[in-house]
Amino acid sequence: MYFPNQVEIIEVGPRDGLQNEPLAISAIQKKQLISQLAEAGFSRMETTSFVHPKWVPQMADSEEIAQYCKELGLTYIALTPNMIALERAISVKAPQIAVFIGASSAFNKKNVNKTTSESLDECELMFAKAKAEGVFIRAYVSMAFTCPFQGDVSFEEVKFVCDRFTELGADEIDIGDTNGKANPRIVYERFSRLRDLYPNTTFVGHFHDTEKMALANVLAAMQAGVERFDSSIGGLGGCPYSPGATGNVATEELVNMLMRMGCRTNIDYNQLLKTAPFAKRLSSRLEIYSEESL
Amino acid sequence: MYFPNQVEIIEVGPRDGLQNEPLAISAIQKKQLISQLAEAGFSRMETTSFVHPKWVPQMADSEEIAQYCKELGLTYIALTPNMIALERAISVKAPQIAVFIGASSAFNKKNVNKTTSESLDECELMFAKAKAEGVFIRAYVSMAFTCPFQGDVSFEEVKFVCDRFTELGADEIDIGDTNGKANPRIVYERFSRLRDLYPNTTFVGHFHDTEKMALANVLAAMQAGVERFDSSIGGLGGCPYSPGATGNVATEELVNMLMRMGCRTNIDYNQLLKTAPFAKRLSSRLEIYSEESL
Repeated sequence: MYFPNQVEIIEVGPRDGLQNEPLAISAIQKKQLISQLAEAGFSRMETTSFVHPKWVPQMADSEEIAQYCKELGLTYIALTPNMIALERAISVKAPQIAVFIGASSAFNKKNVNKTTSESLDECELMFAKAKAEGVFIRAYVSMAFTCPFQGDVSFEEVKFVCDRFTELGADEIDIGDTNGKANPRIVYERFSRLRDLYPNTTFVGHFHDTEKMALANVLAAMQAGVERFDSSIGGLGGCPYSPGATGNVATEELVNMLMRMGCRTNIDYNQLLKTAPFAKRLSSRLEIYSEESL
Repeated sequence: MYFPNQVEIIEVGPRDGLQNEPLAISAIQKKQLISQLAEAGFSRMETTSFVHPKWVPQMADSEEIAQYCKELGLTYIALTPNMIALERAISVKAPQIAVFIGASSAFNKKNVNKTTSESLDECELMFAKAKAEGVFIRAYVSMAFTCPFQGDVSFEEVKFVCDRFTELGADEIDIGDTNGKANPRIVYERFSRLRDLYPNTTFVGHFHDTEKMALANVLAAMQAGVERFDSSIGGLGGCPYSPGATGNVATEELVNMLMRMGCRTNIDYNQLLKTAPFAKRLSSRLEIYSEESL
């Protein structure tokens, strides 16, 4: 088995984790979360989305959050689902953007009312613009294993998206088990084929813990050479289109496993243990803290 | 990576899972659990312990449980911590027994007030007697990675126990991460060394899910050639000497992962999904069902 000396973890809790919370989380609370994560050692984090607040009200404060990340000196990633979002990201000089495309057209149709192919066409202009501005592009392939609308997603569907992403110059491609239904075998096989097909591309593993296999999936992806993983503090998150899907693999559980395996992450585990309960309270849907009480 | 076609899962919930429950679980409830597990396809199960009820009151009904397992035609395993227990097991013609020895003397001292070496000496007579009666011997190495009293457990300590177990003729050696602190790297490395040292011995992996790494540990052990694993329905169990240690890896989660990876287990997953809530109710410590209500 292969155990890399160093692994990069990208915290996605403030964006992927919080975006679907039904109750409003204030900008102050988000900043506290981001600040605690920065203190734990994350210099790269996915913190907001320039999606229209009509679609994701939770992300209505993206400019304010972006400004805060800039003050903290973070290399933050902002999700930009379309050209308008990209322009907003550029106007605040976001250093990194993320776009996502579902490997299954069924998912894309439901999500943005476009086929995978139509979505990729839209990416062409966005990638060109981002590259012209020197912005780092993270390109997500969502539902890269199964899809709640379609069932199994073929490797060919994933390859179809990766072909275009690499042609268009994505800086990293993030392979998402968005609904948490992948298993270590398909993870290993799929990442191995991707590595062989695109030897110069950096792949990221993005696993949800729906079936409790997220850590095993990380281990499997590592055997195929993956050394970057997304995670979400406290296991925040879910998938609005996949009932029952739980959050991303919890950052503290991932860091703990890597640390015990001797893989450096440069993240302070003890700080994570303080931040995780705070993150969980934000997302518990049971209790919402007033700004005063924080 | 290596994905075996077939994996044997040994259900240990009725013994390892229930033994530490603080509230009495009736023999009727245990029989219902065992019967449901048999229905799910387990022909081999660890169902009781002939420990003196003064030490483990939960196991006071071992003769009755053994008789029930016999009626069901199960190849059940009964824990026999000493010669008196072994004699009781033999008197009811238990087909398989389990003995356990902590790899760390600190654990043995606390557990049975003997060093590892003294415990192994006691095994000599027990193994001889069991073998004379044609009883299959499962030999546990407990605390084979870390120990709550000692900290890290060295490979040499594990080897010391395995040397004697193999000499004495154990039919399988079960390597226990009894407090759930192992990680995939040490699991892989330790099982690889054991396989190389004892090529003719069958090893079993026994993982607790304290740090959420149990499934990843199973995957790692598999890479070292292990194809037998213990698990506990509903994740029952814990370790009385290791505060906070959670139960064994949950049978339903293990079967799900293996099934999705294409490893046959001959266990009916849907039946497990019915049995797991029943098992959890037995162990919840929140609620106890009267025999009438079952």
